[in-house]
Amino acid sequence: MNKIGFIGVGIMGKSMVRNLMKAGFELHIYARAKAKVEDVIEEGAVFHESIGDCVKGCDAVITIVGYPADVEEVYFEEGNILDSADEGTYLIDMTTTSPMLAEKIYEKGTNRGFHVLDAPVTGGDTGAREGTLSILVGGRQEDYEACMPLFEATGTNINFQGGPGSGQHCKMANQIMIAGTLSGVCEALTYAKAKGLDLSTVLQSVSTGAAGSRQLDIFGPKILEGDYAPGFFMKHFIKDMKLALTEANLSGLSLEVLSQALANYEELESVGYGDLGTQALIKHYEESCGEE
Amino acid sequence: MNKIGFIGVGIMGKSMVRNLMKAGFELHIYARAKAKVEDVIEEGAVFHESIGDCVKGCDAVITIVGYPADVEEVYFEEGNILDSADEGTYLIDMTTTSPMLAEKIYEKGTNRGFHVLDAPVTGGDTGAREGTLSILVGGRQEDYEACMPLFEATGTNINFQGGPGSGQHCKMANQIMIAGTLSGVCEALTYAKAKGLDLSTVLQSVSTGAAGSRQLDIFGPKILEGDYAPGFFMKHFIKDMKLALTEANLSGLSLEVLSQALANYEELESVGYGDLGTQALIKHYEESCGEE
Repeated sequence: MNKIGFIGVGIMGKSMVRNLMKAGFELHIYARAKAKVEDVIEEGAVFHESIGDCVKGCDAVITIVGYPADVEEVYFEEGNILDSADEGTYLIDMTTTSPMLAEKIYEKGTNRGFHVLDAPVTGGDTGAREGTLSILVGGRQEDYEACMPLFEATGTNINFQGGPGSGQHCKMANQIMIAGTLSGVCEALTYAKAKGLDLSTVLQSVSTGAAGSRQLDIFGPKILEGDYAPGFFMKHFIKDMKLALTEANLSGLSLEVLSQALANYEELESVGYGDLGTQALIKHYEESCGEE
Repeated sequence: MNKIGFIGVGIMGKSMVRNLMKAGFELHIYARAKAKVEDVIEEGAVFHESIGDCVKGCDAVITIVGYPADVEEVYFEEGNILDSADEGTYLIDMTTTSPMLAEKIYEKGTNRGFHVLDAPVTGGDTGAREGTLSILVGGRQEDYEACMPLFEATGTNINFQGGPGSGQHCKMANQIMIAGTLSGVCEALTYAKAKGLDLSTVLQSVSTGAAGSRQLDIFGPKILEGDYAPGFFMKHFIKDMKLALTEANLSGLSLEVLSQALANYEELESVGYGDLGTQALIKHYEESCGEE
């Protein structure tokens, strides 16, 4: 495995491309706006004008794009991945998308002779930059093992979750956990503020104990500073929660806290906050209390 | 400060008594059932047959009992703490109880010449045993400083939160955070199980990233093993969440996730699970999915 096609050279993708090149792979990239990827081209990535050109002759193709519709486009549209990649190529979608879409890529891809994996990640831009992503992989186990050198170049906590779509299911579970945790953090800080406590002291007091969490560590201080710059966009989290809730409903599950968190976020998006970071959930509580 | 009265020698209290003796204080204890505290009596604590006898002549009195009604009894009933402690004694309630009750003890106690602090803790039986509790203190700052040697004997993360009741308010914030986090953990594991994932792999995959939390670390493995033994009793958590919700409502806050978590727990308590640990919240999801 040597030549890697990479589609989706955004914030996350760019760091992953760099880590793959550092590990010795030959990177072929495609992007709509070449200007935005000039830096990695200078560092050695080979730019192509179309997805079809990019993936031809590659041993593996990695995609990490935005929404399910973007995934559909790069895989299924005429001339794109399924039409253009060589038979036997490993196709790895690292976008967070629906498990059903992952199964669809697997089926169509397998029918055309590809090895297909879904491999969404957690760890954000920091994890991508430092090569310490968690990678959640679904598909066939032998394909997972064959692609291990790629995964090891970009992540540290790499796990096979099961058949096609299982990587996405594990990512859904991850997002469900975050929805509850961040809601708890925001409700607690809203309470503490309303009761006149000093919020820095509260953070210091509770973060070391049973209430401690990565969400509190990352976003507690940002919320206190009113810093809503996106580490992770609210609009993308809403996409993920919707996918999770759809899947939960398909299994007859009633996940009330997830539903509540999604409703709170959708309300914020409807008034224009979708481009803020997930920590701006605090605004739901401020505004419902008439304090904003 | 030398002679300490201690009311509430339960699982937490016993460890705190030991740590206070280890730090050189003279401990005077009261308990309804002497047989249950024979071990700490042998280790040097002085047993008294009544609360009044126990607190007479002490420099400070610490209480850590069960419910608000127990707190009312030990402070306000005839012959108990407020009737029997010497003027100038430091009265420290470390029970998790309502901020309003903390204010009431402060007012009545201050009127009779006592120094009153509310100082609930987090860190559970392990924190109590190891002397690493977080202690959340409300009252007058000079009283807080005067009692620091007591706090340092039992905890490591000790913080002054503000006026009377502020310690309790911070504890409420802590419990609100836990309610959201543990709900997220249970919903995520319910989802993962329904989708056929291997739950140990899921824990390993998500616990190191943005979904990570102390609740997940402590209770994830227990939930997988079906171990519902109480680290923290569900019935006590329900008490705390009710107090928090009452206080939130008084401030006009709408904390939807807290309300939902409380409703889920009350449903479990109503069918007899109140004596299980908080992690048995997972049963709400199992049973609503007809899987139990």
